[in-house]
Amino acid sequence: MISVEEARSRILAALSATPAETVPLAGGWNRILARPVLSRVTQPPADVSAMDGYAVRAAEAVEGASLAVVGSAPAGHPFAGSVGPGEAVRIFTGSLVPPGADAILLQEDAEAAEGRVRVTETVRQGRWIRRRGLDFAEGEELLPAGRRLTARDIGLAAAANHPWLAVHRAPRIGLLATGDEIALPGDPIPPGGIVSSNTHALAALVRAGGGDPLVLPIAPDDSRAIAEAAVAARACDLLVTTGGASVGDHDLVQAALGPQGFELDFWQIAMRPGKPLIWGRLGATPVLGLPGNPVSALVCAVQFLTPAIERLSGLPGGPPRTLRALAGAPLAENDRRFDHLRATLAEGADGQPVATPFPVQDSSMLKVLSRAEALILRAPRAPAVPAGTPVEVIPLGDLGI
Amino acid sequence: MISVEEARSRILAALSATPAETVPLAGGWNRILARPVLSRVTQPPADVSAMDGYAVRAAEAVEGASLAVVGSAPAGHPFAGSVGPGEAVRIFTGSLVPPGADAILLQEDAEAAEGRVRVTETVRQGRWIRRRGLDFAEGEELLPAGRRLTARDIGLAAAANHPWLAVHRAPRIGLLATGDEIALPGDPIPPGGIVSSNTHALAALVRAGGGDPLVLPIAPDDSRAIAEAAVAARACDLLVTTGGASVGDHDLVQAALGPQGFELDFWQIAMRPGKPLIWGRLGATPVLGLPGNPVSALVCAVQFLTPAIERLSGLPGGPPRTLRALAGAPLAENDRRFDHLRATLAEGADGQPVATPFPVQDSSMLKVLSRAEALILRAPRAPAVPAGTPVEVIPLGDLGI
Repeated sequence: MISVEEARSRILAALSATPAETVPLAGGWNRILARPVLSRVTQPPADVSAMDGYAVRAAEAVEGASLAVVGSAPAGHPFAGSVGPGEAVRIFTGSLVPPGADAILLQEDAEAAEGRVRVTETVRQGRWIRRRGLDFAEGEELLPAGRRLTARDIGLAAAANHPWLAVHRAPRIGLLATGDEIALPGDPIPPGGIVSSNTHALAALVRAGGGDPLVLPIAPDDSRAIAEAAVAARACDLLVTTGGASVGDHDLVQAALGPQGFELDFWQIAMRPGKPLIWGRLGATPVLGLPGNPVSALVCAVQFLTPAIERLSGLPGGPPRTLRALAGAPLAENDRRFDHLRATLAEGADGQPVATPFPVQDSSMLKVLSRAEALILRAPRAPAVPAGTPVEVIPLGDLGI
Repeated sequence: MISVEEARSRILAALSATPAETVPLAGGWNRILARPVLSRVTQPPADVSAMDGYAVRAAEAVEGASLAVVGSAPAGHPFAGSVGPGEAVRIFTGSLVPPGADAILLQEDAEAAEGRVRVTETVRQGRWIRRRGLDFAEGEELLPAGRRLTARDIGLAAAANHPWLAVHRAPRIGLLATGDEIALPGDPIPPGGIVSSNTHALAALVRAGGGDPLVLPIAPDDSRAIAEAAVAARACDLLVTTGGASVGDHDLVQAALGPQGFELDFWQIAMRPGKPLIWGRLGATPVLGLPGNPVSALVCAVQFLTPAIERLSGLPGGPPRTLRALAGAPLAENDRRFDHLRATLAEGADGQPVATPFPVQDSSMLKVLSRAEALILRAPRAPAVPAGTPVEVIPLGDLGI
């Protein structure tokens, strides 16, 4: 059995980013930039007013002075002339400052009457003028490749005059559930069978991570069905199977994929819930085999699939984000498997988060996983600790997982 | 001028959730459930094995005993008979426990040979059996209305045999930029003009919040164009305008919308960046008028539009999530406007987050907003504080904003 960290490192090392595609600006949101965005314009394009008021010559605009208003410059309609001695031009936020003016007299510091304006507060040179290029200059790199684009970044790329962006293609993740005992929701349930939940939960998790899920029909426990589905999934950037990965008598996934050119890098991981996991490659397509147990499958997905999607999407990928919380109950000594206790997360008296494990941690309990707000991480051989001890947790509310 | 809190309360009070729609299971991810999900099945449907091993009668399965293996029960293929005295049935994780058996002998505690199995570790009654209904029972409410659905919730709804979900329709948010001086990215830029970024950034912000953005063509500063666009937006759950909201001479939005049946509940908000804001109603459609300045528009969107989308989506809506950080630099005394300082967010020496404001806070600087990781909140009249003082911040990385 290998550690969670080593397993994740081996998975990430085998993956690389999808190639770039061109998307319209708005389609770039939450995607990973494949080429840097260099500004195509200078912003502001010239000196502009930061306020509503009057463009003036500062040397003249002293308290009590009276200036002739020779024109107006609404934003988008620059004043054609210049501001001469004794003159002022009505101006608005974002308007170009006309030649000759070197400061803005604020509207509230001026009294306008009959084509003239009286200064009620002396103006300082350069005041309320935003200089050309204050925000950014033409040719400047505004957004680096490899960045996950926020709404603010989309605004910045727009302001830099980019109608299109080059981003990594959303990785297509094939999802294949195996097993004779499972049925799709709403379909007839076989005797002793259960409703298949894994591919649906994983499809949502893939979407949450920015991937493009492809749910394949359920493959019964039959080599041929599994092999056929695997062939259908060759167009995927990653094939994820669930079930058939344990070491029992009915573990057909490995056997079924062999004749299809599957190179097995099988391992068991020293983790709970989880343990049985397949990692390998089917021709060019990497294959991640998750346990069939829904709770195990989802916890393994948080540890391995989400980082894999990040790497395929153009990010480095790495461990899930964790935060420090206080244990809300005593924690027992851990065995040799890295444990993930399903827990609630609440704010304690002093504002620190408190993570309290559910009393029953059976890995078949999907309802408990749905209610959980965090996974308390317990290292192999971690000693028993009393309530109030700091622990590391993966917050589950983040990212829609 | 009213406070940020009062403005948000008035906005939220005027909005209600969109009606429900039926979506396929996977389409429910990140949506707000409109009707509770009650389980249609009991899970597990009967007593099942929690491990691979042998179904046995515990009273007989003592160390050293030898039992006849009378059959096998792979998951999905229940054993047709029962386990009699001196008998055992091969069983796998998830398999139904055959009648007669009351415990599972673990595979690793058994030696199998020639149709018999020898017990190497005494079995306790009930051990490794998951009881019928351990996870959930038919008719049980698993997911309440009003919940934002996670990937785990989708898995739970699937396991409860729901192929469809009733969720609130994603609110359609019309986005209308106004102004003679703005051009779409890639289009010719008028003299003294700039590239329009607001609607693109806001479209991404709407998507980040789970809404459905509708970007309307730019309306020049002309009553008729604005009025036409407003009419086109009547099918929206909320119309958001940018620009034309300040009190200068060129504020046409209010004037243009009046003849269309616009009821103005205008206010100025005591905040920075921001201040000019329109709130009202055009017939049945609520209207939020944001400032034209891109930084102001986005900060106002974080404070008002995202909560509005939450309310429209079926959540209560409320202030943005904040966290406590330490000021990374001294902060000046604040005036009467609630301030939002653009800041970086890093982990300090003791693990606490440290928020350091950018040296220049000019509200025209979109690049700085894109680089910002947090907004430091400064209450009206907040006193000057030294570096290291705890401050409240809105983390911007969350939610793709």
